[in-house]
Order: sequence, then structure tokens, then C-alpha cells
Amino acid sequence: MKQVGVALLGLGTVGSGVARLLTEQAERLKRRCGIEFRIKHVVVREPDKPRPVTLPPETKIVTDIRAVAEDPEVEIAVELWGGIEPARQAVLTLLRHGKHIVTANKALLAEHGPELFDTAQEVERSIAFEASVAGGIPIVGALAHGLSANRVQFVRGVLNGTSNYILTAMSDSQHTYAEALADAQARGYAEADPTLDVDGTDAAQKLAILVQLAFGQRISGHQVFRQGITGIQQADLRYAAELGYNIKLLAVARLHEDGLEARVTPCLVRKRTPLAEVRGVYNAIQIQGDAVGDMFFYGLGAGQMPTASAVVADMIDTALGRAQITFRMLRMWASNDKGLRLLAPEETRTRFYFRFNVQDRPGVLAQIARVLGEHAVSIASVIQHEPPPDSQAGDTVPLVLMTHRARTADALSSLEEIDRLPIVSPPSVLLRVED
Amino acid sequence: MKQVGVALLGLGTVGSGVARLLTEQAERLKRRCGIEFRIKHVVVREPDKPRPVTLPPETKIVTDIRAVAEDPEVEIAVELWGGIEPARQAVLTLLRHGKHIVTANKALLAEHGPELFDTAQEVERSIAFEASVAGGIPIVGALAHGLSANRVQFVRGVLNGTSNYILTAMSDSQHTYAEALADAQARGYAEADPTLDVDGTDAAQKLAILVQLAFGQRISGHQVFRQGITGIQQADLRYAAELGYNIKLLAVARLHEDGLEARVTPCLVRKRTPLAEVRGVYNAIQIQGDAVGDMFFYGLGAGQMPTASAVVADMIDTALGRAQITFRMLRMWASNDKGLRLLAPEETRTRFYFRFNVQDRPGVLAQIARVLGEHAVSIASVIQHEPPPDSQAGDTVPLVLMTHRARTADALSSLEEIDRLPIVSPPSVLLRVED
Repeated sequence: MKQVGVALLGLGTVGSGVARLLTEQAERLKRRCGIEFRIKHVVVREPDKPRPVTLPPETKIVTDIRAVAEDPEVEIAVELWGGIEPARQAVLTLLRHGKHIVTANKALLAEHGPELFDTAQEVERSIAFEASVAGGIPIVGALAHGLSANRVQFVRGVLNGTSNYILTAMSDSQHTYAEALADAQARGYAEADPTLDVDGTDAAQKLAILVQLAFGQRISGHQVFRQGITGIQQADLRYAAELGYNIKLLAVARLHEDGLEARVTPCLVRKRTPLAEVRGVYNAIQIQGDAVGDMFFYGLGAGQMPTASAVVADMIDTALGRAQITFRMLRMWASNDKGLRLLAPEETRTRFYFRFNVQDRPGVLAQIARVLGEHAVSIASVIQHEPPPDSQAGDTVPLVLMTHRARTADALSSLEEIDRLPIVSPPSVLLRVED
Repeated sequence: MKQVGVALLGLGTVGSGVARLLTEQAERLKRRCGIEFRIKHVVVREPDKPRPVTLPPETKIVTDIRAVAEDPEVEIAVELWGGIEPARQAVLTLLRHGKHIVTANKALLAEHGPELFDTAQEVERSIAFEASVAGGIPIVGALAHGLSANRVQFVRGVLNGTSNYILTAMSDSQHTYAEALADAQARGYAEADPTLDVDGTDAAQKLAILVQLAFGQRISGHQVFRQGITGIQQADLRYAAELGYNIKLLAVARLHEDGLEARVTPCLVRKRTPLAEVRGVYNAIQIQGDAVGDMFFYGLGAGQMPTASAVVADMIDTALGRAQITFRMLRMWASNDKGLRLLAPEETRTRFYFRFNVQDRPGVLAQIARVLGEHAVSIASVIQHEPPPDSQAGDTVPLVLMTHRARTADALSSLEEIDRLPIVSPPSVLLRVED
């Protein structure tokens, strides 16, 4: 039996979940893994605030990480504060004091990963971060261990539960975006300020971490092209459904001959495929490797206990010495790989969905088709319904087009030119199709 | 850079795939993991048979494992012969000569796991076996690392690609079982003698391995209750579809208050749920853990490169020392856990689907319902269609019933009693429903 001293930075939702697993499941962890975790310190801002968890008598509730840094009995520090500062400073200090780190902080890793990883390498300590991406889904482990013999061709997925809940609610209940957001907030699935979830920032940070694991490439969340879901309208969900697609906010990292594509965008995804059917707050990740073929992982991407489960798995891995081996391997890969060029969004090729509001008169489709043709964007299918019987002369009608694969730059410049046609009432809608 | 000497036992489909990954991807493995694998020996029965892979000049093709056992440069032996003997003897000998083992041999582990694991423990060597279950899906790693903080409530899945291909083909193309089997054989998805795939033995062996990982429980494939798919008829697929279900051969291990249920049976699975939608030769596994909630993994469960991918991942883990840590932990759990009682099939409770051939006259449903009621089996839904217009007096018509949860013993004794009623023409069909 090995006793391992740990400190928790943060005792909010996930922190309380971790403390609960460590205390309530102590016997199970001893029996299975031969480890007795002892929570030596909990570092919080407000030490007197009542907490929904009973800590062991030996645990000291402190406000300063120095207590942790200077306690030789603490081997592992678990950073659950979230955000950049003071988490970044705390992790650097604790590494330099010889502590291994377990963290669920995707923002910190996506923006300051290289600095933290280099420091850890220097002082021969590890950083484990399974909980930073997709909660309880063991995707970090799958990429770092199970798929290490593969050249990954793409990783893509639903990485933000809030956005996926909103899109599912819009699709199921004909809610507007605002109504679906209010519903998500009422259920605790969206924060009062949902910006980072709905604008793609959160998913982009997680994608940056997956890119490091799948392609050995250091990119930051800021380098990932982002388009959020706030502009998604009922009309687009309906036309997508008519064409056989759902709309999902997808994070996509794909290897091309000329570089790496990394983006978070709403996409049309064909119904009855695994990604299209991910509902509510679930997360899912699809990976294609050259040896293993297609793989798909699905589970709760957030929430107290799924995230705590991933944190405790990392603590076990660190206590047993496995996380250190994994961390050294990931570091080596990142240092040895000749960098891939990150493609600008305009350079990538994909299929597109366009929705235009056009005047209902002869020659409209011909004009739009001509512009697309001149930009080498080829039309795959068209929907234009008859105008409703009570429509007035001069009313616009929606015209929906799906294209074959085209360069994004060409799709964007066609859109710009089409929006200038007198027969079109902007704004038009442009969405990607992910096959 | 670490040089690691390895030996491959077997150079068939998977063995050639492993040799290809090790030789063609040597640079990638060096760069990412810092390991240079050197194939010192390949042990085959027919050394002169032409092989679809180019081996390095240093590789010796031998017929006797003594060459491997006595070569001090071999650290890892990769057993890909399959079957029980001579694989069992070879693994025991190689362990005693200090070699770590990587194997894809589910039959060997399911039937002789305890003996091999105890021997490995004694000589302080490891056995890694990711490839033995579900090919490239990293389910062994997920259970051994990612979910180690969870109490698993159930593991269930589609673990046999051959059966799943046959059931998918029967469902899509109205093929009979025999036609679908012939189709699978023509495509190389089923062997000339498909018995072990279609009677549930293969899936039961994989389930026995998953039970060890998920519940710390040593059971053998023989202890898993099995019902195969050879009796599945078009009529049952059609009625299942009408009720909103697909039929899948599921391997199920579930924790109950009074013990562990472990079985491989064809089951009705509600359409549009992840397991119901697993098509063709794909495998899938669903896990429920007390902390992590529901998780789902999906991918190619067999085939040369997916399986080779899992084998090489285990070789990397062993070369880095991670597999040894995992193996010690799994061993500890198996030794420390107080055994769970394995429930007899009759003791378990589930929902059932019955199909009877009954005479088309008054009182038939009443008689059958009375027998079910007397055995405490409660009816949830009934399908009885009008007989076709050209039916003759005395023809039987199908009567399909779905029940609420009932004890299997009660369902079986009702079936026996109903089959003795003069209005019923046996054999009747009984299938489980997995919600």
C-alpha cells in the first residue's frame, strides 16, 4: 500500500467531486490500485465558505499555494481553478517545488501549454490532463497510448455540450436560438455569460490540446479558426433536415497534403451517422488513423462526476508512475516532429451549404449559378419551394444550395459577389458540410 | 533512443500487419516514442512459405520458440498464433525466460488467463492484451486506466463482427440466415466453419476478459451463458422492426445486488440507440460507471491493421514500462477483490420477446396470457395481424408478445407450458430485450 499526499486547488463543482471520490471510494482505490490518497491541503479563495463535501480531519484548508509547495508530503497537486491566472503561476510554482500536476484546465493548456510542459520537463515532473478534454471520455489516453502506432488523419467531434444542447433543443422544439439558450441556462447547462461556449472558444481550446496529442503539433486555441452558433436559424435547421442533415458545432483537425486544418464551425452532418446523432450535453469524438480506421467515442463531456472521474484516473496514473512515462513520450514527440503548417481557413476545401433570400422571378437561379461557376464552385443540389399562396409581389423566397467540394476562398468570394446582385437580399448564410 | 528486441510468434494476417507497422513506420515510432523495435525472430510452422511482408535482414525465421527464449536480446514476445496450444506452452516458457508478452489471443486468456497471469506475476513480467478484445478499439486501456476510479455497473457490446455482419445483412436484404452467412463467407468476414463466431463463443471469450477488467473478477469464457444467432429468422427481424427494435448479438456483463450477470445472447435493442445502429463488421462497447455515467466506444473490431495497431500500441507500452505498471495493478485488483457470485441464467431478470405460432380462433390470447400471468410474467405489448386472405382453416398465425421485466426462470417455464397448449405449434421463439 502506497500513501500519496495530494492537494486540491479549488473546491467548486469538480473539486468537490474529486474530494468525494477520494474519500467515499477510498477503500475501492486501495483495493484496486494499492494507493491511499491523503488530501493534505485544499487551496481556496474563501476558506470559510460552506462546502458540499466532508473533508478528512487532516486536510488543511488554505488560501495560499505556498503551504502546498512547501509540504514535502504533497506529491500531486490537482489544479481545478480554471482560467489563466492565478492557475498558471500556481502550476509553475508547484512544478518547481517538485509536485506532479493533474489539471482539468483546457484554457490554461491551450494558451500556455508549451511554457508549462517545458517547465515540467526541466524539473522532471509530469502534467496529466485527461479531464481537460471531453470530461469522462478517455480520449487523451486513447490518443497517447492506444493509437500511438497510427498516423492520425483527422480528429473531429462535438466538444462543447452547451452548444450541442442548444442546437438539439432548437432542432427538437423549433425554439429560436434565444429560447434554446434560455432553456439551457435554466437547466444549468449554460452560464449566465455563455460567450465562450457558443462562440467556439471552449471547443477551440480543447481542439488545440487534441492537435498536440494527435499530430504532435503545438498550436494554441487562438490559432483555431472559429465560427459560433449564435447565427444559426430555424430555417437552416429545417433545410438541413430536408437535405438529410443535422447541424452540429464541430471541432475539426484534419491532415492535408499541404498542412493541417483546424477549425470550430457549425457544420451540416449527415443524419444517422454517429456524430449527427450526438444529442444534448453529450460529447463525441471521431478519429481516423491509418492503421486503425475509423473510431468513435461518446460520453458525458462535462459535469461534476464525469470530470472528477477523469481527474482521479490521472491521479492514479501519476501515483503509479504511468503518467510520467506518457508525459515524457508526448514531450519527445512535440520536440521531434517537424512542424506542420497550419492552413489558413481560406485555403481549405470542403462542401458548402448556402442560403440566399432571392426575389421570386425568372433568371435568379441562373445568375447565382453563373457566379458560383465563375468561382469554380460546383452545385450539388438545390432547394427552392414555391412561394406561399399569400405572398406579395416583391417578397423574397429562400434559395438553398449545396455544393461539391470547393476552396473556402472561392466560396467566400462567390458569396460576396452574389450578395451584391440586385436580386439577392443579404445577409446570406454560408455553412460547411462535414461528410 | 532505446533499442528493443522483439519476436513475433506467427506471421499470418495480424503478424504481417505488425511486421509492416514496425518496419514501414519505424521512423515514426522512433520520433514519437523514442523506441527502435528490432524484430529478432519470427516463429512460424512453415519457414519456407512466402510471406506478404519484407522482414529486415537481421530477422531469423525459426520454427522453435527455444531460439526466442534463449536470445537475451529479445525483451518482448508477441503471441499471434491464436488458439490454446501450442500458444499456452509457448507463453509460459517465454515468461519463465524473462520475456514480456503481448498477445491478441482471446481464447487463451479467457480459458487460461489465471495460470498465465499468475506465472507472469511470479517472474515479474507483464502480459498486455489490448488486441484481444475489439481489435483497434482501446477498450482494455479505457477500463484499466481511464475508468479506474469508477464502479462499473455494466459493460455490454457487439463483440463479434461476423455475427453482426450476418444480422445486418439479414435485416437489410431480407436474406435468410444461410444466405447471409454465405455472403459473409464470400467477403471473408466469416470462416469456412463459422461455429465459434455465430454460437457466441468468441464474444463470450472477449466478455470474460472485459469482466476481469471491469469487475476484477476471474471468469472463463465457458462460464458465460451463450445463445447464438443461428436460430434468428426473418420473421423475428421484421416483428422486432415493427416494435422499433433491431436484433443484435450482445455480450452483456451487469452487476446486480446478488451477483454478476454474464451472457452472450441475441437481443432486441431499441432502434436509434448507439448499440442498435452498429452495422456490418464494426464492434461497439457501452459502459456505465457510477462516476462517469454512460460511455460508448465504436470501431473496427477485427482485421489486419486495426488489430496490428492495438498490438503495436501494447508493444510501445511494454517497451516504455507502462504495461508493467498496468499489469501489476490489474493483478492486485483480481487478488484483492472479494469474488462476485456469477448468477445462473435463470436467476436474471430482463424483458422478453415471445413469438408463438397459434391457431387463429377465439380465446387463444386469453390462454397464453393466463399462463404468463400465473408465472408472474407481465405483458407489455402484443402484435397479432389479421391472417392473409388466402389462409386456410387450421393455418397457424404468429402471435408476438413483449413482456415487462421478468425472471428468466419464469419466462422459460411459461414458454414450456405454453408450448404444451393444443392451440400452439412449437417451436416458439424467446429472445431477450436489452434496454
